[in-house]
Amino acid sequence: MKISVLGTGTVGSTIGSRLIELGHQVMMGSRSATNEKATAFVAKHKAGASAGTFAQAAAFGEIIFNCTKGEASIGALKSGGSALNGKIIIDLSNPLDFSKGMPPSLIPSLYNTNSLGEEIQKTFPTTKVVKTLNTMWCGLMVNPNLIGGGDHANFICGNDADAKTKVKSLLKEFGWKDENIFDLGDISASRGTEMYLPLWLRIWGATKNSAFNMQIVR
Amino acid sequence: MKISVLGTGTVGSTIGSRLIELGHQVMMGSRSATNEKATAFVAKHKAGASAGTFAQAAAFGEIIFNCTKGEASIGALKSGGSALNGKIIIDLSNPLDFSKGMPPSLIPSLYNTNSLGEEIQKTFPTTKVVKTLNTMWCGLMVNPNLIGGGDHANFICGNDADAKTKVKSLLKEFGWKDENIFDLGDISASRGTEMYLPLWLRIWGATKNSAFNMQIVR
Repeated sequence: MKISVLGTGTVGSTIGSRLIELGHQVMMGSRSATNEKATAFVAKHKAGASAGTFAQAAAFGEIIFNCTKGEASIGALKSGGSALNGKIIIDLSNPLDFSKGMPPSLIPSLYNTNSLGEEIQKTFPTTKVVKTLNTMWCGLMVNPNLIGGGDHANFICGNDADAKTKVKSLLKEFGWKDENIFDLGDISASRGTEMYLPLWLRIWGATKNSAFNMQIVR
Repeated sequence: MKISVLGTGTVGSTIGSRLIELGHQVMMGSRSATNEKATAFVAKHKAGASAGTFAQAAAFGEIIFNCTKGEASIGALKSGGSALNGKIIIDLSNPLDFSKGMPPSLIPSLYNTNSLGEEIQKTFPTTKVVKTLNTMWCGLMVNPNLIGGGDHANFICGNDADAKTKVKSLLKEFGWKDENIFDLGDISASRGTEMYLPLWLRIWGATKNSAFNMQIVR
């Protein structure tokens, strides 16, 4: 499948590399088509990998991964323009606010009675936003089997049932088992998964290792 | 031990009953000494159980459980006055705001860069506030062995190390194993555990059963 990854940081390059490994064609999107990290990504993977602007990436992919920083997500997606119409945006971002010191808090106006997932859906109403994978370290996003035999929780939410089904297929390619993917309902459930980040950061601080995730015990 | 439980709702009566079962002397505190639920609690348990006003309960207990609704917690504790000086307050409350519809959001000014746990500690600086047990259904708080052989996570935070040690002892009486109690640091970590509530509510909505909890898989 043709898939675009917006954002060339650790999350974007981890997602992009895994998609290439799985046989997909991947365009890394960034502000500049000559972005250093995107160029290195293409040089490393060669076949199947390409780089472009946010606009080029929005046009390329059938599915768009948003791996940009939360504060930059809306702007990056706006560069995509009408090329995004009808497409699935898999939103992995979190509205982290580093301006008030560490650990980061959440960006005002994007939590509690709103969320970044919802804000993206509202700003781009012709797209199908599916929020997932934003509650764990990126190494686990693409390879859940790294810990606990893969038995830990991933959440998914979004307004479009078909889009969620397609994203679930991709999650299964990453190694996620069906019983560990919890569908929390419409995109407003992003409030829950994004507001978990402050707890995630505290657990990380206490355990000193980002390779953890929650499982739901019942 | 003499322990007071502020709040006679489901959480308070569950905590109170378990403490009685464990052999502690418990005073249930409420706005009125003739509170119906507190009276029923005393009638049910007889030996070891008593009821009083918030002020009487603050004076009675060596340790005070705050099981009041988040919106009422500061007010209830204020009724305790100087009787609270030097005491440990185990804060189980969450700053839930039901005024904007269901599921509830969090009370403005008590999240992100603040929390109810911190607000209680700031308002009553002579007390030792320990936040714990606020991330699960009350049945599990007092009997973690109900699910998963008791292997799921409880968080604890607070500014006073001795107070946390004492609270941990009490948690172990409830059935919590040492390795499942995660110390997240000072009371500001309440931000994390309280902001988890929106996700908890969504998971509850998806699984239709409140008898679940997260475990940390590493």
